[in-house]
Amino acid sequence: MNMYDLIMKKKRGAELSCEEIEWMITGYTKGMIPDYQMSAMLMAICFNGMSTEETKNLTISMADSGDRLDLSEIRGIKIDKHSTGGVGDKTSLVLAPLVASLGVPVAKMSGRGLGHTGGTIDKLESFTGFSTSLSTEQFIRNVNDIHIAVAGQTANLAPADKKLYALRDVTGTVDQMSLIASSIMSKKLASGADGIVLDVKSGDGAFMKDEASAIDLAQEMVGIGKLAGKKMAAVISDMDQPLGYAVGNVLEVKEAIDTLKGRGPEDLEELVLTLGTYMVLMAKHAETAEQARKMLETALFDGSAFETFCRFVEAQGGQDKEARNPELLPKASIIREVSSIKGGYVEKIMTEEIGRISLLLGGGRETKESEIDLTVGIVLMKKRGDCVREGEPLAVIHANDEEKFSAAAERLRKAYLITDERPAQVNLIKNIIF
Amino acid sequence: MNMYDLIMKKKRGAELSCEEIEWMITGYTKGMIPDYQMSAMLMAICFNGMSTEETKNLTISMADSGDRLDLSEIRGIKIDKHSTGGVGDKTSLVLAPLVASLGVPVAKMSGRGLGHTGGTIDKLESFTGFSTSLSTEQFIRNVNDIHIAVAGQTANLAPADKKLYALRDVTGTVDQMSLIASSIMSKKLASGADGIVLDVKSGDGAFMKDEASAIDLAQEMVGIGKLAGKKMAAVISDMDQPLGYAVGNVLEVKEAIDTLKGRGPEDLEELVLTLGTYMVLMAKHAETAEQARKMLETALFDGSAFETFCRFVEAQGGQDKEARNPELLPKASIIREVSSIKGGYVEKIMTEEIGRISLLLGGGRETKESEIDLTVGIVLMKKRGDCVREGEPLAVIHANDEEKFSAAAERLRKAYLITDERPAQVNLIKNIIF
Repeated sequence: MNMYDLIMKKKRGAELSCEEIEWMITGYTKGMIPDYQMSAMLMAICFNGMSTEETKNLTISMADSGDRLDLSEIRGIKIDKHSTGGVGDKTSLVLAPLVASLGVPVAKMSGRGLGHTGGTIDKLESFTGFSTSLSTEQFIRNVNDIHIAVAGQTANLAPADKKLYALRDVTGTVDQMSLIASSIMSKKLASGADGIVLDVKSGDGAFMKDEASAIDLAQEMVGIGKLAGKKMAAVISDMDQPLGYAVGNVLEVKEAIDTLKGRGPEDLEELVLTLGTYMVLMAKHAETAEQARKMLETALFDGSAFETFCRFVEAQGGQDKEARNPELLPKASIIREVSSIKGGYVEKIMTEEIGRISLLLGGGRETKESEIDLTVGIVLMKKRGDCVREGEPLAVIHANDEEKFSAAAERLRKAYLITDERPAQVNLIKNIIF
Repeated sequence: MNMYDLIMKKKRGAELSCEEIEWMITGYTKGMIPDYQMSAMLMAICFNGMSTEETKNLTISMADSGDRLDLSEIRGIKIDKHSTGGVGDKTSLVLAPLVASLGVPVAKMSGRGLGHTGGTIDKLESFTGFSTSLSTEQFIRNVNDIHIAVAGQTANLAPADKKLYALRDVTGTVDQMSLIASSIMSKKLASGADGIVLDVKSGDGAFMKDEASAIDLAQEMVGIGKLAGKKMAAVISDMDQPLGYAVGNVLEVKEAIDTLKGRGPEDLEELVLTLGTYMVLMAKHAETAEQARKMLETALFDGSAFETFCRFVEAQGGQDKEARNPELLPKASIIREVSSIKGGYVEKIMTEEIGRISLLLGGGRETKESEIDLTVGIVLMKKRGDCVREGEPLAVIHANDEEKFSAAAERLRKAYLITDERPAQVNLIKNIIF
């Protein structure tokens, strides 16, 4: 076998065999296939796609490129959760402790933010001392003790994906369905959970801009997971506006804490309850969806979800007093409203642009090496369908630099499309695939 | 500017601006843009193509990436010639001295063979001591003295093309029209001739398999050359069977010598006369095509073309006695006929396969580092349309290894398609563009 022939085969639109994909991924992981050949292959895949069979084989080859976590010492049916990434997406911060508070073993692998989307690990590091670098033993112990642990991707979990992702990121080959699906699923398969619930975002702030491609991606991933023997469910949720109101690390943590206390934004709470229902059902902690949802609602309102969150923060080295009193978390030096220059209804919020404004303020990473400022971000005051008067605030910007504040304020005003007529309602939950 | 955005732009199918192409080629030549980004770009170009404007800008950027040869010290209108490559293509060996014998200054840049096609430099190195590593001064002096010099591509002529070609060669991105056109023309523009005659091969043994794409390529190159102020002509010629009978370095040199003495194969002579006519006209050494052709025919038959060839071999370090007595050239140890197992008419000769058989015998390069065996090859006895009896020889194989001979003989038989009906005639010259 040689890589040149495989590139030509894919370029012609033919299907790569299981052996060819395995050979390619093994060779690339070991450094025997150079980046320049792999990037030509990736671009050919962007144009000619991959079949379901090829995508499955790619996923399994990547999952097998390193270690697979053995979670058999955790009692019960272990559940992992993954979001394809959005703006203001603090779902995991609420969902994981909420579900864990019902005794479901939540063994979650998380990533850092990249581009205009945030990452769970960065957000959790808002707590002084918090760490996601857990040994396997510690990870297992925490799930057995408090039903929850969140770990960063360890070095040798799907190393092929790590290498490929870095290459895709700089070669314009990120936005291909099969490559996205296999990247996500290879990590999930290697991380050893029994069931996986996927939150597939669709809309302007997501990688999948339209619902049809989000459904395709969800079906692809659910199919792969099932073939690998996992319990699978995917929720397609709206990302045509930020989720909740807060965008930025500390700001999102605060909103997550509110939600864990039963006082969160409606959309975030609804999404958490929907995803949570499937996690509880998968783990067989409820018989019906109604029962599962009821249990989750109770845990939000009786304080048990929040208690689990505080214990979780403490168990991973953080200070639970910062969770109990979020005013102790660090703040930006400039906290200032941005008002509307026009009255009307919010028809659209350019969501990717909101993510990019947060990036501009310092809240995200331009490249993998970027340092991020946890305190900056945006708290929206108006969301889609809201009425706004001229001069009324659209959002509050949290910044640590006057120039960046001004630039952000100007872009923020432009990111709101305000019209005279009230826009039609949009459903938060667009589809569920399982 | 950054390469990521340019890749995405081309991937979307948009046109790159002149500045963007220049920035990209300069950055790549200097090593500031990594191979893995360039190969993703090349693959995107393979799928989305380049406009005429983009191709022109790419060519000029590559021509400007290094030195441009200054041939102003050569008297007269300097003519260069280029073939897109074929099997048994020894045209330059005959054409260059023939045209030079009429006093036309032939300043030719040549390449080595790669893949299933041969290269002029390798063939000329059949002569003991022959060298194409000429200094610019020596190159100019030879053209002024004997009207002919053939040089290998010097290190700093279109270095961008050299680097890009090597990358295309290993990333499956060789066969794209604009990339082929710009690669050829950038070298030709940098090498300083006033007029360029192109031999664009079309057929199974060529890179362009069909006439339509050969015409497209020819038009693209003629257009670029004219925009750059060059006199241009392109002949589309048949490569659905090897040119002449000999395939292999020394074997082709011998056939070229026969042709220079007026006793060559009909197709080779016809092609040489056609291309030569345009070279003579361009150089203003004749008024009409008829006149030019007449002059060329005379030079073939009165010995002056051959005399120029001998002087040329000597001027570049070779032994003219080997030209005058080709039996002195090295020979293979196994020279054996391969006979037909079937009678009928030769309907088709799989020409690329003939080139690959020569490669298998050791006559060509699999990679740029391969050493080649100048003595091996194939001399066809039958060509398209010829009648063949069962047991009659199809070809003579020249080999230095019994095993390779056997493998070659078996493949050679399969490369001949023999049928009962005499096939229709095919024109050697398919089109002329100027």
